[in-house]
Amino acid sequence: MSYSLVELARLTATELIGDGSVTVSRLASIATADVNCISFVVSEARAEALKTSRAGAVVVPSALASEITHGLVSDDPYRTYAELSALFDPGLPFDAGIDPRACIASDAQLAGQVSVAANTVIGEGCVIGEGTVIGPNTTIYPGTQIGAHCLIAANTVLGSDGFGFAKGGNGWIKIRQLGRLVIGDDVEIGSGCTLDRGALDDTVIGHGVKLDNQVHVAHGCVIGDRTAMAGCVALAGGTVIGADVTVGGMTGFTGHLSVCDKVHIGANALVTQSIKIPGAYLGGAGGVMKAADWRRNAVRFRQLDALARRLQALEQACLK
Amino acid sequence: MSYSLVELARLTATELIGDGSVTVSRLASIATADVNCISFVVSEARAEALKTSRAGAVVVPSALASEITHGLVSDDPYRTYAELSALFDPGLPFDAGIDPRACIASDAQLAGQVSVAANTVIGEGCVIGEGTVIGPNTTIYPGTQIGAHCLIAANTVLGSDGFGFAKGGNGWIKIRQLGRLVIGDDVEIGSGCTLDRGALDDTVIGHGVKLDNQVHVAHGCVIGDRTAMAGCVALAGGTVIGADVTVGGMTGFTGHLSVCDKVHIGANALVTQSIKIPGAYLGGAGGVMKAADWRRNAVRFRQLDALARRLQALEQACLK
Amino acid sequence: MSYSLVELARLTATELIGDGSVTVSRLASIATADVNCISFVVSEARAEALKTSRAGAVVVPSALASEITHGLVSDDPYRTYAELSALFDPGLPFDAGIDPRACIASDAQLAGQVSVAANTVIGEGCVIGEGTVIGPNTTIYPGTQIGAHCLIAANTVLGSDGFGFAKGGNGWIKIRQLGRLVIGDDVEIGSGCTLDRGALDDTVIGHGVKLDNQVHVAHGCVIGDRTAMAGCVALAGGTVIGADVTVGGMTGFTGHLSVCDKVHIGANALVTQSIKIPGAYLGGAGGVMKAADWRRNAVRFRQLDALARRLQALEQACLK
Repeated sequence: MSYSLVELARLTATELIGDGSVTVSRLASIATADVNCISFVVSEARAEALKTSRAGAVVVPSALASEITHGLVSDDPYRTYAELSALFDPGLPFDAGIDPRACIASDAQLAGQVSVAANTVIGEGCVIGEGTVIGPNTTIYPGTQIGAHCLIAANTVLGSDGFGFAKGGNGWIKIRQLGRLVIGDDVEIGSGCTLDRGALDDTVIGHGVKLDNQVHVAHGCVIGDRTAMAGCVALAGGTVIGADVTVGGMTGFTGHLSVCDKVHIGANALVTQSIKIPGAYLGGAGGVMKAADWRRNAVRFRQLDALARRLQALEQACLK
Repeated sequence: MSYSLVELARLTATELIGDGSVTVSRLASIATADVNCISFVVSEARAEALKTSRAGAVVVPSALASEITHGLVSDDPYRTYAELSALFDPGLPFDAGIDPRACIASDAQLAGQVSVAANTVIGEGCVIGEGTVIGPNTTIYPGTQIGAHCLIAANTVLGSDGFGFAKGGNGWIKIRQLGRLVIGDDVEIGSGCTLDRGALDDTVIGHGVKLDNQVHVAHGCVIGDRTAMAGCVALAGGTVIGADVTVGGMTGFTGHLSVCDKVHIGANALVTQSIKIPGAYLGGAGGVMKAADWRRNAVRFRQLDALARRLQALEQACLK
Repeated sequence: MSYSLVELARLTATELIGDGSVTVSRLASIATADVNCISFVVSEARAEALKTSRAGAVVVPSALASEITHGLVSDDPYRTYAELSALFDPGLPFDAGIDPRACIASDAQLAGQVSVAANTVIGEGCVIGEGTVIGPNTTIYPGTQIGAHCLIAANTVLGSDGFGFAKGGNGWIKIRQLGRLVIGDDVEIGSGCTLDRGALDDTVIGHGVKLDNQVHVAHGCVIGDRTAMAGCVALAGGTVIGADVTVGGMTGFTGHLSVCDKVHIGANALVTQSIKIPGAYLGGAGGVMKAADWRRNAVRFRQLDALARRLQALEQACLK
């Protein structure tokens, strides 16, 4: 797998700098690249790295075009890096096609070019779109619908029961989960995720949604197109997330609330109310501190309302 | 699967309103129900939804009996909804019985009517009670005991090693985990959970306990009867939780502490000390804010003790 | 499996107290031990437990040597407990060797004494060192390298794709993940973990690292030797953790930061900046409170910057 720079310029629609016959056989980070590698620098702020890099060729923004001997000029070097990564990818992690050790219900409908790796279980009535690739040891409950060109990693569970119980006289009465899980096209779902079927209405994952590992989506959630969620995010039941939303890792949603389009939420926050205005949001208590400092401050958090009332009393006494 | 209202009134011990020969074939939410559906409204506060619903029949509390044409009056419409969900459930998600692709140790003891789905691994000496259903790709370590009528979803791990190490001169020395995991009757455990065996004393899950997806229970924990935990809750080693406790999603317990019966803890909290008084508890730093607001406030959290001391000094200067 | 105290003193290099011919057949906690058991007390502070214990023998520190009739004196009773746990361990949880239902690529290289349990999938080009034991239903992506004497529990995913996308005109463009996951010797990884392969540079797990259940390690992370992380910890991409670090459960790292050696971080914190000084660190907002108290305090957190400014204004007015 090796390419000349003139080929790469053509394949990525970028501008060639230097000798187009220079050949590279690997894609590498700027710090570890050697003469056989192509690498990239995303912005002028990282220009310093060019000086010490041994990369044979580098993708740069136009502001850095004069700083390289051989390489490509791109209006978005990070996007060009993504395109190059496909060219240098040796291919599917597990063999294409249906592994004979996959367990697929006889009435499941799999479109053309679907790949299902070993030990994956696909239940009755599932529908899986063209070109979708499913990793090993994944479980897909009956009735789940998955669109085309999706990528589902390993050990993920799609369409299992939501968590629903009513109080009975003698413990909990299970609410049977009668809805489905419906996933759009071009969706990527990481490893170790759990996406539940709906209680009554379906759980719906839009087109182009990207979920990292260990994401949990409860019953009846709706996630809009192109929304991306980092690792360990959890959505309680009935959370409705708009399109083009991004969510940082470990953030939770308490359920039965909605988030509008184009909202960007940081890591480790808890969303307890609907968000109706696009923009950036953060939550949580901030980063770590030396243990002794944290203990002193955390104790005050428990007194915060009392402190605020004391401040108010003092203002009234002193500023009248 | 269709029922007349007179049948449903009998099966759910509710009072019939309107024409008992009206037939419904689906259970649906009030907003999406059509004329073939039965739906429900849990309280007077939701009466508005009745006006626009196209449901053929509705379960309502007695206060709303006069607002419907056909339906059922229940003293607890949510419980009646749970009962109806069982009537409209097409059945087990995977075929009943022992899937031939399950891997079951020859000396494991499975009672009658146990279902084990494909690729589930059940180790030596496991004991599984009558009517328990186990989903695909689940792993049950040797010696684990599971009661009757439990429901274990997919890709869950029961009875794996707890996390125990002693410091040696040259790194960590593993503490072998010699206890078991013992699970009561009528327990439901979601997908992607991990419940560890005990180090010495068993990990014990009481009767009627309900655990959502991705819950983690460390070695030596004890969870009391009918306690319910939402998704991604984590219990560190030796946590003892009482009966009839509810825990919101993503909440953690730091271990070697106890929580008494009838405690209700919110989402995304960290329980660091024993709770000895029943009631509702919350933790964490509150919801999300606009990023700029959050940054301003979070920086003050790091100064909180200093702020409190300044307030105290000011009180002494001004209020003497 | 029974031992005389004289044997146990020799095997654990401890000092015998009392009758060396006393025989014990189980290891138990001090509260539940009976006359056939050996138990342990880690420090003088726990001496009280000796009075009521029915243990046949006890491991104690030298300060408690005079308090026991039969037992062992150790300079580190907890380490001796770890050593005893190995002596009383009935052995591997699943049969040693390669289970015929494991799915192993023909070109994967497995050293001697490797155990692979049922339904585990090992991809092309994987290399697994001597004596490593891998639990059921685990997925190991192609190209992953695992050292010698590792213990990988069940339903864990090693080497799946990292979460990398560039913005395209029409949604996200996947960045193919071309690096590997490389794991050292003597590593233990719990159940339900997800460790991603690198985007370009490898994800690297050092020797003697211990990860509890449901830990998530994103692409390009590096974890130093002997570092231990409790359940549900998550590392975003490019996090570099030093050696001999400990991390409490549910703590997150926002990525592209580094933590030096010998740092100890508490539970449920979010590390957002590099830590360059060894020591103990904590984060989060503290423990839970009665719900009404928490609501009052949490609302003030949202006003914290305003409160601090009011305090400053008051100081200027009153203390000039």
